[in-house]
Amino acid sequence: MKSLSTTTLANGKQTEILIADNLKDLSAHLGSYGRSVLWVFDANTATLFKQLPPVNVVLESGESSKNFSSLERILSNAVDEGLARDCRIIGFGGGVVCDMAAFAASVFMRGCKLTLVPTTLLCMVDASVGGKTAIDFKGLKNMVGSFYPAEEVLISMDTLRTLPEKEYLNGLAEVIKHALLSQDEQLYKFLLVKKNEILSRDIETLQTLVTLSLAVKQWYIEQDPTETKGIRQVLNLGHTFGHALESSGHFTFGHGACVAWGTCRALEAGVNMGITDKAYAIGATKLFKSYGYDIDYRIGRGDWIEFRERLSKDKKKEKGQVLFVLMESQGKAVLRPIDMALVQHLVIAKPIF
Amino acid sequence: MKSLSTTTLANGKQTEILIADNLKDLSAHLGSYGRSVLWVFDANTATLFKQLPPVNVVLESGESSKNFSSLERILSNAVDEGLARDCRIIGFGGGVVCDMAAFAASVFMRGCKLTLVPTTLLCMVDASVGGKTAIDFKGLKNMVGSFYPAEEVLISMDTLRTLPEKEYLNGLAEVIKHALLSQDEQLYKFLLVKKNEILSRDIETLQTLVTLSLAVKQWYIEQDPTETKGIRQVLNLGHTFGHALESSGHFTFGHGACVAWGTCRALEAGVNMGITDKAYAIGATKLFKSYGYDIDYRIGRGDWIEFRERLSKDKKKEKGQVLFVLMESQGKAVLRPIDMALVQHLVIAKPIF
Ligand SMILES: NC(=O)c1ccc[n+]([C@@H]2O[C@H](COP(=O)([O-])OP(=O)(O)OC[C@H]3O[C@@H](n4cnc5c(N)ncnc54)[C@H](O)[C@@H]3O)[C@@H](O)[C@H]2O)c1
Ligand SMILES: NC(=O)c1ccc[n+]([C@@H]2O[C@H](COP(=O)([O-])OP(=O)(O)OC[C@H]3O[C@@H](n4cnc5c(N)ncnc54)[C@H](O)[C@@H]3O)[C@@H](O)[C@H]2O)c1
Repeated sequence: MKSLSTTTLANGKQTEILIADNLKDLSAHLGSYGRSVLWVFDANTATLFKQLPPVNVVLESGESSKNFSSLERILSNAVDEGLARDCRIIGFGGGVVCDMAAFAASVFMRGCKLTLVPTTLLCMVDASVGGKTAIDFKGLKNMVGSFYPAEEVLISMDTLRTLPEKEYLNGLAEVIKHALLSQDEQLYKFLLVKKNEILSRDIETLQTLVTLSLAVKQWYIEQDPTETKGIRQVLNLGHTFGHALESSGHFTFGHGACVAWGTCRALEAGVNMGITDKAYAIGATKLFKSYGYDIDYRIGRGDWIEFRERLSKDKKKEKGQVLFVLMESQGKAVLRPIDMALVQHLVIAKPIF
Repeated sequence: MKSLSTTTLANGKQTEILIADNLKDLSAHLGSYGRSVLWVFDANTATLFKQLPPVNVVLESGESSKNFSSLERILSNAVDEGLARDCRIIGFGGGVVCDMAAFAASVFMRGCKLTLVPTTLLCMVDASVGGKTAIDFKGLKNMVGSFYPAEEVLISMDTLRTLPEKEYLNGLAEVIKHALLSQDEQLYKFLLVKKNEILSRDIETLQTLVTLSLAVKQWYIEQDPTETKGIRQVLNLGHTFGHALESSGHFTFGHGACVAWGTCRALEAGVNMGITDKAYAIGATKLFKSYGYDIDYRIGRGDWIEFRERLSKDKKKEKGQVLFVLMESQGKAVLRPIDMALVQHLVIAKPIF
């Protein structure tokens, strides 16, 4: 087990990020906490252990578990086990499990200890760090939740071995997004050079990949822990276009593929508006394509009305206008509205590069 | 409307406490917030307005409303009204309404604006200030909640006119408790001198009473906003004995009467243990009696086992031992375990002073 870094977040709370050599190393570390511990899994991540820890909650896997009934289940187990305020909740899984475990920890006796063990690439580089917790409510994503950074995030690369390819690519899209947002070119170059090792999930390569990607997220969230300064929002690069595509449901690829597609649309928009360096946009688009994302996809003309409808529901709004994250160049992002005629052109017309 | 004081709490968040001349003054202030507002009442406090504000939730009155279903009702209304993250939830009522409104505000979109309008004396001097929010869960009080200080607390003394006597005495017990915990004797002396005006709820007298009492709570919570330093716990003076009595259910008086009784038991214990100044304990006991609390009440021998059982469930524990708040003298409190034989003697035997 080695300590990777520490992030200081809202409230002066610190999250320590630890890298375990393997699952055994990780269990040993967590075993030392003794009895006042409640584990949260989902049906898939529960199978990663030969023997489940004694006090556990296993949620159904998938987004539909992010609701009040899962929250009450976790809390109810904590009460039944007689856990006190100094107990620890351990979330072991992807973003769904970690969001649920963290929300429960934030309200159990007004806040107990929290360890997150992310087991998807997306959760390692994104969901487990930053303190956002949430459940979906009345069909709306992440509508109810809290800011509650984990005390520690334990990452064991070997958990990624069993991750389905589609889930792996979900995470990888966020990694590439982080590469664009980074203040230096290290991650970007690593992605260019190490493509084969990354796609074959070489453990050592993964460690570097996760480390570099996490550093980018940390850089943004430390400056704006509760997303009130417009800095942290930049991490939503690609998500405005991406969510509209994802929620319109005509595109059968995963969340990551939508984010990749959305990021490239934002790059094109920026070029069109004279904001984004064209050579940079072309290079970044090529990088996404090299990892197999369907960047050239366009929606049908008949789907435009619905797409626009979904877009208008985005939360990043100012005076009723949706704000998009646009890139100027490496690491330099700005928030801007985009003319709807341009949006329509970008999502329907043939690619310009 | 005049500003009384500002308390700085967890996260650097500030609560401004405002005193309104009357309900009309208060409505005018809140009216200026426009449309992005959701009001929370209970069945009794909803009747204090001639016309209810347009967007509101009316909970059943009483402790049984502090649950997940009330929470979901408030959040569901917020979603249905299309409220955004910069909306405001206004809790208008006693501790139940204010705890519910505050918990909902703390999790709606990970935190929206919050105004509390306490309409019971207890809520004015205690529940509305300090940032604790909670619901009861699986029969356990305040098991689930958050720390989320209101941005503003608006107090209008005229709301107290309709408050039932029993509820008024609930609050008054906390006021007298604050008088003992205060760093100066102003509130204590005010209670001695102004008894008639206080009991007849003279509006000007109430303003001074609430102002002095609030200042004591503020003094303690500012030093220990999230109750992690053992300072804020001192505000539980009288509550360990009091809760055990209240929850054993043999005593039909209210929460405040139990706190008054419990505070006097803690004073006696302190005298017995050589911790509390005897003259001080006698004076304070007399003060409680002068306000009509049944301080001489003792439990029957047959009820001791149950009382002890309830006591052992108290949350203020260290190494399995229940800790009691004991007074040394005016404003000086300590946390100590008490020998069970002494506890038994104090709650069963005839009063010693
Ligand atoms: N809190 C945040 O800051 C934040 C950031 C980004 C995303 N999120 C949230 O994260 C969620 C998405 O996270 P996710 O993509 O990890 O989804 P997920 O948790 O649903 O995991 C995806 C799938 O992979 C399975 N799985 C997880 N680990 C596995 C492993 N090691 N081997 C085999 N299968 C495994 C899961 O059971 C699930 O079926 C969303 O709800 C999103 O809102 C939160
Ligand atoms: N958050 C905190 O720090 C904190 C501190 C102390 C107590 N509390 C909580 O507060 C609650 C108790 O508060 P409470 O004593 O105000 O109880 P409450 O809110 O139930 O009010 C008591 C009764 O008075 C009625 N009422 C309220 N205002 C009225 C008015 N102006 N006129 C007529 N009737 C009125 C209510 O409808 C209710 O029936 C408990 O749940 C307790 O846990 C919280």
